Amino acid sequence: MLLVLLLSLAVDGQMFGTLKSPDFPDPYPRDTVLRWNLSVPDGFRIKLYFSHFHLEPSYLCEYDYVKVEAEEEVLALFCGGEETDTEAVPDQKIITSSRNSMSLLFSSDFSNEERYSGFMAHYSAVDVDECSERTDEDLLCDHLCHNYIGGYYCSCRHGYLLHFDNHTCRVECSDGVFRERSGEFSSVDFPSPYPKSSACSYRIEVDPGFKLLLQFDPRFEVEDHPDISCPYDHLKITTGSKEFGPFCGNQPPAEIQTDSNVATVFFHSDNSGENLGWRITYTSTGSKCRAPEAPPNALLTPVQSEYSFKDHIVVTCSPGFTLMKDGENLDYYQLECQSEGSWSSSPPQCQKADRGGDALCFTSSPITAHISLILIN
Amino acid sequence: MLLVLLLSLAVDGQMFGTLKSPDFPDPYPRDTVLRWNLSVPDGFRIKLYFSHFHLEPSYLCEYDYVKVEAEEEVLALFCGGEETDTEAVPDQKIITSSRNSMSLLFSSDFSNEERYSGFMAHYSAVDVDECSERTDEDLLCDHLCHNYIGGYYCSCRHGYLLHFDNHTCRVECSDGVFRERSGEFSSVDFPSPYPKSSACSYRIEVDPGFKLLLQFDPRFEVEDHPDISCPYDHLKITTGSKEFGPFCGNQPPAEIQTDSNVATVFFHSDNSGENLGWRITYTSTGSKCRAPEAPPNALLTPVQSEYSFKDHIVVTCSPGFTLMKDGENLDYYQLECQSEGSWSSSPPQCQKADRGGDALCFTSSPITAHISLILIN
Repeated sequence: MLLVLLLSLAVDGQMFGTLKSPDFPDPYPRDTVLRWNLSVPDGFRIKLYFSHFHLEPSYLCEYDYVKVEAEEEVLALFCGGEETDTEAVPDQKIITSSRNSMSLLFSSDFSNEERYSGFMAHYSAVDVDECSERTDEDLLCDHLCHNYIGGYYCSCRHGYLLHFDNHTCRVECSDGVFRERSGEFSSVDFPSPYPKSSACSYRIEVDPGFKLLLQFDPRFEVEDHPDISCPYDHLKITTGSKEFGPFCGNQPPAEIQTDSNVATVFFHSDNSGENLGWRITYTSTGSKCRAPEAPPNALLTPVQSEYSFKDHIVVTCSPGFTLMKDGENLDYYQLECQSEGSWSSSPPQCQKADRGGDALCFTSSPITAHISLILIN
Repeated sequence: MLLVLLLSLAVDGQMFGTLKSPDFPDPYPRDTVLRWNLSVPDGFRIKLYFSHFHLEPSYLCEYDYVKVEAEEEVLALFCGGEETDTEAVPDQKIITSSRNSMSLLFSSDFSNEERYSGFMAHYSAVDVDECSERTDEDLLCDHLCHNYIGGYYCSCRHGYLLHFDNHTCRVECSDGVFRERSGEFSSVDFPSPYPKSSACSYRIEVDPGFKLLLQFDPRFEVEDHPDISCPYDHLKITTGSKEFGPFCGNQPPAEIQTDSNVATVFFHSDNSGENLGWRITYTSTGSKCRAPEAPPNALLTPVQSEYSFKDHIVVTCSPGFTLMKDGENLDYYQLECQSEGSWSSSPPQCQKADRGGDALCFTSSPITAHISLILIN
């Protein structure tokens, strides 16, 4: 009668241990199959080696053998007492699992021509240094990776914050409001790659009546997709009710002439990719007023072919003439180009000066006054 | 008023972690002293490195500094933002404690000329590979050492047993009883070093009346001490109530002539030392009997100058004479040398043969009978 002893031993959670053939150091019994299932926590591998090995030799280890398996793959098959062309012995070999489990199978057949003392093996958990191993084409950590026994964690360079994905480093980038009539801003670190997992919002607010013009630096690189429109990272611009974008890819958008004095530039980046980003230069232009026609004997300063919102024209009169507005005698008069493209009023008329008019009245020359007013503006 | 914030943080049992200067990533406050006491379990060391470091620079770090200490020794002193001849910054340096604790001290003085962002450091427990490190001149394990995360254990080569000290490999060596009249035995593995932590007892038991002679192999090496007599390993021999030894050192004892047929050789080894051991060859000799005087017309065979215990002498008579013992007519008579050195009896007398004595009575010659008896013996 054939009696086969079949045993399976689960050795869970032990961080190290010793495995011995049955009855070790005495010879092992025949017709015995014994399996040890080793497992250690995630973040570890299993290292196994033998300090003693003496099994019945057989061609290709058909009779008695020790088989080491992991992830349904045979890592090693051993038998006999010394290495041959067709059979292997453990000797000093160290077998390491690729993940956190391993199984060892011992099998003896119905007969032993001699008495074989079996084996003694030693296993232990080995820390996986996740930081020095890439799991795929992305690094485990966006900036800095810190290994510890049983795991790892990420951190970010100074000025960055770890995203709640515990992997990417984001930035706080939504503080700025630009109030100057012109300026420029860019993605963080431009032209070095911009931070991941970030949502940045930049607001431009110039005086009412101005209209913003946005121009992009030719170096423009925002992660895109060949088929889907900007699924990863994108730049969006809103001005009042109008929306521009989303923009991504390697070509900068054309310049954007808005009809608003306020614009919001919103930039979103996902948790992967290394792209250079973008830079926006903005300028603001007011509405245009046509050059007014000068009344007879009047002088308009400065003379321009076109005037913009908030430009001024100072009206003075030729010598011997005086400026009359609403029945008053003025040294000069000022017109302002308004947001809707019209002048604040029409230029007043110059009338021939009265007799009683005294040259002393003009010691403060209208030209001088004009200059000081322009300085004030 | 000077306000110094002095805090001490114990970070026990954490296997890894992050240390930051107060308010990091914002600049650290002035007049602050902060100490972190890190400790991990036995069997681990602590590894520390910095991912950010920006402190006020000062000559020899007199103002603001970070000091790393372990075992009351300063492992590192850092300040400033870049390495100089007199001040060090952490840069990529990894600081490792020699044991399982470490302390980090941060100190800022009353003023900061600029604003310094401080530091961020990372620590983790590192396994000590005890097997690859000798703690003193002895190895941790007598035979085989197996490291695991947080510790190690020893095992022994096949045929040896781990002593309860979990370090040395002893042998079972008290089985043998030697019953042959001569033989030899030695310390285990002689002339390779004998096993440690072993108590071996060898018994010689030859037939009563024999006296054992013990002789030592010239190669003799048993661990000794220059001042104290055999405090570590020793060989002791007892025969009945007599005791020989303890023996140790590099010179074999002189041969020991016992007056017993039984001897016990006891060998004790302690848990250290590599010494070749000893070999004993024993022989056994019986008591001596003086050659008896032959009676007239008698023949004693064999003729020897001396006889030993259990030797026989056969007494026969010359032709024409007959052997008489207790009134009986014998073909031959046998004497035996006894353990106390005397013969079993005195040789009987030869008397002239009777007339009726027939030559046919002697067809079975006493010489032939003698030979066959000797063969039986």
